Amino acid sequence: MRWADGLIAVDWGTSNRRAYLLDASGSCVDEHEDSQGILSVPAGGFPAAIAEIRQRLGDQPLLLAGMIGSNRGWVEAPYVPCPAAIDDLAAALVRPSDREAIVPGVSYVGEGRADVMRGEEVQLLGAVADETIPPDALVCHPGTHNKWARVARGRIAEFRTVMTGELFNLLKEHSILADLLQPDVEPDDGAFRTGVDHGLTHDDIPAELFAVRARTLLGQAPHSSPASFTSGLLIGADLRIGLAGTVPAEVVVMGRPELTELYAAALAQAGIQARELDGERCFLAGIKAIAERIE
Amino acid sequence: MRWADGLIAVDWGTSNRRAYLLDASGSCVDEHEDSQGILSVPAGGFPAAIAEIRQRLGDQPLLLAGMIGSNRGWVEAPYVPCPAAIDDLAAALVRPSDREAIVPGVSYVGEGRADVMRGEEVQLLGAVADETIPPDALVCHPGTHNKWARVARGRIAEFRTVMTGELFNLLKEHSILADLLQPDVEPDDGAFRTGVDHGLTHDDIPAELFAVRARTLLGQAPHSSPASFTSGLLIGADLRIGLAGTVPAEVVVMGRPELTELYAAALAQAGIQARELDGERCFLAGIKAIAERIE
Repeated sequence: MRWADGLIAVDWGTSNRRAYLLDASGSCVDEHEDSQGILSVPAGGFPAAIAEIRQRLGDQPLLLAGMIGSNRGWVEAPYVPCPAAIDDLAAALVRPSDREAIVPGVSYVGEGRADVMRGEEVQLLGAVADETIPPDALVCHPGTHNKWARVARGRIAEFRTVMTGELFNLLKEHSILADLLQPDVEPDDGAFRTGVDHGLTHDDIPAELFAVRARTLLGQAPHSSPASFTSGLLIGADLRIGLAGTVPAEVVVMGRPELTELYAAALAQAGIQARELDGERCFLAGIKAIAERIE
Repeated sequence: MRWADGLIAVDWGTSNRRAYLLDASGSCVDEHEDSQGILSVPAGGFPAAIAEIRQRLGDQPLLLAGMIGSNRGWVEAPYVPCPAAIDDLAAALVRPSDREAIVPGVSYVGEGRADVMRGEEVQLLGAVADETIPPDALVCHPGTHNKWARVARGRIAEFRTVMTGELFNLLKEHSILADLLQPDVEPDDGAFRTGVDHGLTHDDIPAELFAVRARTLLGQAPHSSPASFTSGLLIGADLRIGLAGTVPAEVVVMGRPELTELYAAALAQAGIQARELDGERCFLAGIKAIAERIE
C-alpha cells in the first residue's frame, strides 16, 4: 500500500466530519462533509461509517485525524507529548488495518498544567512542514476550544487551551443570556470592540456576563448588540490568558476564516499583528507531510 | 385588609416557589414548596397558581417576592434603585389587587456597571430590620447568581452579581466536563481547597476549566474529585471578584446552608471570617418588616 499515491484524509470531530480525496500530488480532487461526528456513530459502527466515506470518495487508504482517535472514537491513539514534531505524529500513527491510520493527538504537562489537543496538531505542523509559518511562532487556533501553541524549532513546544467557543455556545444555548445572544443580523463592531477591551483589561468574566443582562433590563446597554459584546468579552479574556502578559511581534491565527477574522481584529486592538491562515489548507498540508512519512 | 394580622409570604423564583403561612406574630405556622416556578406558569395562569396557594395554606393576603415581579412574572414591579432601604421596598409594592402585593427588586447603576436583584433584597434588608446584621456590612448571597452587597446605614448601597452557580450548572449539564462534574458521593475537601486557591490567585477560568478534563485524560489530576475542584475554582474566582482586593474583617454569608457552608470555607481560606445566616429566616424577617409597613 503506497500512501502517498493518493488517499482520503478525514478530519473527524465530535459533531461533524470532513473527508478529502487527495491525488498523488496532494491536491484535493473531491470532498465530502456531513454531521456524522464521533458522538453520532453507534457502538461498533465505525467500520460502516468508514465504508460510507469510501463509497462516496473512492476505495483509497484513509488517514484519520481528530476525535476519531480519542477514547470516545474508533481506536484510541495515545497522545504524543510535547515537544512534538511531524515525524513524531507519523511515528505514532495507530493502524486499525493496513488501509487506515489514525493520527495521534498531542499532550502537554508542565508548569503545574496539563493540556491536550486532537486535530489541531495536523494543521499546526502542516503549516510548519510546508513553510507557511516559520519554525518559531506563536499560533492561536480558535474554535470550540481555542489553542495557544508555541512552536519552536518546528515542534509544538507547549500549548494552552481556552474554552472560549464552548463557553459562548453554552451561554447562547442554555443560559439566562440565551435570548440576548442569538446571532446578529449585522455584527456590531463597536460592541465587539468594547467587549474585547473589557476582556483584555479585566478579570471578572463571571460577573461581567451577568451585567450583559442587567444592562439590557435597565436600558443601560451602550450598544445594540449584546451578542457582539459578549463575543468580544470572551475573546478579549482569551487573548489576555493566551498572551500571558507578553506582546509578541506577530501571532499566527489559524482556523475557520470567520473565527480567525474575529481573533485578528481583537489582536489588532491589543496592538499585535495577526497573520490569518485557513485551517483547512493547513490540515491538508499536514496530512500530505504525514502521508509522505508512512512506510 | 390588615396585613400584619396574618398573611402568606411567597418566595417565587424561576424554577420553584416556597409559600409560608405567617400568623399575627410573624411566626411561620405552615408552608408549601413546589416546582411551579414562574417559567412553568402558562400565560394568564398566575391567578389560578395563586388560588392554589390559598387552597393549600388558607384564604389570606399574599405578599410575593422574587421573579414573580419580573417581566416574565405576573405583574412587573419596577426595580428600586440603590441605595434601597426596607421602607423603599414597602413604598414601591405593586398591588395587583387589595389582597396581593409584589415586592420590587433592586437595581444598581454606577462605576460603569449595572446590576439587578429580585428576592435577595427581602433577605438582606430583613436581616437589617431584625438586627441580625449591623447597618453596615458586606454580604455575600450565594445561589444561581451570587450577590455581593454592601449594606450601609441599613440600606443596600451597591451590589454586584457573579453568576457562579449558573456557570457550574451549565458546565455540569451541557459541557465537555459534564461527566466529570456529577455530584460526589463524598465531597473532596482537598480538591475543593486546591480549586479555591487557584481561583483566588489566578484569572484564567476559561483555560483552567479545560485543564480539569485534560488532567483527568492524562492521569495528572491531583485529587479524586473534579467536581469539588471545579466548585472550588469557581467560588475562589467569585471571592476574588467580590472582594475586589479588599480584606474585610467579616463577611455575612446568607442563603441556603449547603451553599453558605462552601462560601464560608472558601472565605476562611482567604483569611476572612464568615458569619453564616439561613436565608429562609432572613426572608421571613424581611416579609414581616414589609408587612408592618403596609397601610
